[in-house]
Amino acid sequence: MNDTSAHLNDLNRQLDSAWEDLFKGSLFLSTIEQGPVTKSLYAMYLIETYHYTKHNAKNQALVGSILPIEDTQYLKFCFQHAAEETGHELMAYHDLKSVLKMSEIDLPGPLPSTEVLVAYLYWISSHGNPLQRLGYSFWAESCYKYIGRLLKKVQTDLSLDPHHMTFFISHAHIDVEHAREVEQMLIRGCKKPGDWQDVATVMLTTLRLTGAMMDEVHAEHQKFMNNTSNRYPFLQEAS
Amino acid sequence: MNDTSAHLNDLNRQLDSAWEDLFKGSLFLSTIEQGPVTKSLYAMYLIETYHYTKHNAKNQALVGSILPIEDTQYLKFCFQHAAEETGHELMAYHDLKSVLKMSEIDLPGPLPSTEVLVAYLYWISSHGNPLQRLGYSFWAESCYKYIGRLLKKVQTDLSLDPHHMTFFISHAHIDVEHAREVEQMLIRGCKKPGDWQDVATVMLTTLRLTGAMMDEVHAEHQKFMNNTSNRYPFLQEAS
Amino acid sequence: MNDTSAHLNDLNRQLDSAWEDLFKGSLFLSTIEQGPVTKSLYAMYLIETYHYTKHNAKNQALVGSILPIEDTQYLKFCFQHAAEETGHELMAYHDLKSVLKMSEIDLPGPLPSTEVLVAYLYWISSHGNPLQRLGYSFWAESCYKYIGRLLKKVQTDLSLDPHHMTFFISHAHIDVEHAREVEQMLIRGCKKPGDWQDVATVMLTTLRLTGAMMDEVHAEHQKFMNNTSNRYPFLQEAS
Amino acid sequence: MNDTSAHLNDLNRQLDSAWEDLFKGSLFLSTIEQGPVTKSLYAMYLIETYHYTKHNAKNQALVGSILPIEDTQYLKFCFQHAAEETGHELMAYHDLKSVLKMSEIDLPGPLPSTEVLVAYLYWISSHGNPLQRLGYSFWAESCYKYIGRLLKKVQTDLSLDPHHMTFFISHAHIDVEHAREVEQMLIRGCKKPGDWQDVATVMLTTLRLTGAMMDEVHAEHQKFMNNTSNRYPFLQEAS
Repeated sequence: MNDTSAHLNDLNRQLDSAWEDLFKGSLFLSTIEQGPVTKSLYAMYLIETYHYTKHNAKNQALVGSILPIEDTQYLKFCFQHAAEETGHELMAYHDLKSVLKMSEIDLPGPLPSTEVLVAYLYWISSHGNPLQRLGYSFWAESCYKYIGRLLKKVQTDLSLDPHHMTFFISHAHIDVEHAREVEQMLIRGCKKPGDWQDVATVMLTTLRLTGAMMDEVHAEHQKFMNNTSNRYPFLQEAS
Repeated sequence: MNDTSAHLNDLNRQLDSAWEDLFKGSLFLSTIEQGPVTKSLYAMYLIETYHYTKHNAKNQALVGSILPIEDTQYLKFCFQHAAEETGHELMAYHDLKSVLKMSEIDLPGPLPSTEVLVAYLYWISSHGNPLQRLGYSFWAESCYKYIGRLLKKVQTDLSLDPHHMTFFISHAHIDVEHAREVEQMLIRGCKKPGDWQDVATVMLTTLRLTGAMMDEVHAEHQKFMNNTSNRYPFLQEAS
Repeated sequence: MNDTSAHLNDLNRQLDSAWEDLFKGSLFLSTIEQGPVTKSLYAMYLIETYHYTKHNAKNQALVGSILPIEDTQYLKFCFQHAAEETGHELMAYHDLKSVLKMSEIDLPGPLPSTEVLVAYLYWISSHGNPLQRLGYSFWAESCYKYIGRLLKKVQTDLSLDPHHMTFFISHAHIDVEHAREVEQMLIRGCKKPGDWQDVATVMLTTLRLTGAMMDEVHAEHQKFMNNTSNRYPFLQEAS
Repeated sequence: MNDTSAHLNDLNRQLDSAWEDLFKGSLFLSTIEQGPVTKSLYAMYLIETYHYTKHNAKNQALVGSILPIEDTQYLKFCFQHAAEETGHELMAYHDLKSVLKMSEIDLPGPLPSTEVLVAYLYWISSHGNPLQRLGYSFWAESCYKYIGRLLKKVQTDLSLDPHHMTFFISHAHIDVEHAREVEQMLIRGCKKPGDWQDVATVMLTTLRLTGAMMDEVHAEHQKFMNNTSNRYPFLQEAS
């Protein structure tokens, strides 16, 4: 096995282990697993998905705009990938309206943990190793392996049709190709052991911050179920 | 004639008049017109072209990364256009090596006027009206109408083959399509008279700064011909 | 009681409650409380303090450089405060060398949670409400009320002289004046309920992220004590 | 004469020569010299002064916020200098109102050349050699040596009291101290010949761009005198 395969395997091992920890500790994930899932929990998750997704194309392009990248092909990847991710938050918004059967919703702003995830993504996209943002894409584009059965569970519990889940279903398709490209970029770009390390750090940290976001969604959902939340007036009838 | 056509016509009238002024005042352009063009003048111009072109994809993407854009299609255009422009400076570098018959050249940094043009492009790409950068694209993508015969003159005077002029020839092709897209984006985006005004200001100012860059190239060329320049050691044998 | 006092009281109540939660949940803080504190734990904490402090002046100034601030006095405060905070990380580094009795140390980079705190500080200093960064200053400049006795505990357990603790001791002094200024800026600036809310969110989130940083220090310390860490070779003899 | 003095002398020689060229070529400066100066010309110049001055503190601080500066004293200088320059545009606005005897004026936006100067200042404050912005300060803080007699001429021609000229008079005072600090920073910071070169380039380019701004003011004034301008409705009665 050559060095590159060894590094990729190592990345995958670390990712497996991080997801395992996440599944052990996350109240959000275990609520979905054990169910039944409520519409309001799914809706709250979609709202945060809308918020961070809105920034993904922007911070992806920032890598190319700001950081010093020698490799023209990687630079092009940054802008192309940004173009492809543009507007995906609208799918999350569509699914939200669809599951709540509403034609327009005045969304609350992002939760603090979502803001922290977004902040970190901008930071690592504009400082440090230009390759490190690939660590985020590495897990984000291949997460269906880990969360696929949970999405199935949500779909069953809420009797959702595929057109209520465009965000997750179309991403599952798009992302197969993206995941391949991300791997290629890692193979082209990572020349030094430090590169793989930087990619791994961003992979683990963004996954952890996404977990924290999920847990804040869970906590908000608890408040909502206990009638101590006023963040989601439009969810009253949908729960 | 509807309002949009009126605004586009007005933009084109202003552009005609700005090019006319440029042709009247520019020592660089009149040197090419009256010729004979020297290899060193063409080479010096390619060097500055390399420098500003290197930034075009980056500041184009910045518009989408930083400025608040409501229209998803315009946002996607920013990133897509950036992806398409990526690496075009390499064509300028290729043409430079090709015309000088050298396999590698240690380029001097940009001239101050080139730096000013680049600075202004970053500024209008990250501050103010998100539509205004289209004013730069508007003239840059359609400049062959104005400078086509000068390029022909350069080609004849220096007996260049098309493969010595990949930057200008391939841009002439790519840019027909781009110019159409830029026009579409202007039509979609410009809703207020202030929008058209902002686009016009950036169009005129970037063209003027490009003219200033050409004139600094001309002045450097004069120094070079008088043997009072040490910026271009590699040009000694090529002039 | 007028509105402003009510808002300040509310901020202080939220802060009390956040510190209470932090003290309940933080393994780092309870380790210090129950002791005995090790030199290596203090050293590891100083290293992270060095890393985030290095950015505080920079992101403080960014508020003034980037965000639209109408109030000249608040703008001046941003730059002046930045000037005063410049170089404070050197005190943390001095204390580290002093407690470890070493003349120079090749510091490891920041832990991921420290990077997350820094990322969030840059984000809220360059996006959103220009007043919100005051929420960080609000608790940071007045934290001695909450952690004073822990610093005392560290000092006693490690038999440290004041000159081993310049970072904390001089900040305790400087910060009395700063805290007053921060309060003044809040009173001048916060005109809408949304302003106070934004300040509170940043206050609570930065305190929470600081807690996460402390807990990662604690986890690293555990690894170090179990000889499963290789981040801190220079601490081997000092623990 | 040591190296540092030689470099400073060289900078001053280049500055003398650049001012000389500016005086030779500038229609704005010769109009003031030959007079009589009109209120409207002075007013138009104050408006552009207002616009670029508004950005000076911000881009000065940006150097410290964004660029990698090792020297803590230089970093502190950037923030301190920014704090001192904050709000100085208000003096220009005050003088404008004072000379026009108006209590409030709805200012037009900056002229394109002013925008170009501002753009270039942001660019060199956030890219390249962190020392290079000192090249702007170097001439800006010591310009009274060159333009002092012109200010005197303006004052005489328009029968202005010192309180109509607070911007220029107070800057002449403040700037003696600043100029000394700038020189100190240059002496501390410039270690390599490339450093002095970068400082000189920014000095010459910002002076040239300021000259271009003056000439655009002159051109606007011509239009105004010929009644072909509608930029300055409030000047109709003051000319």
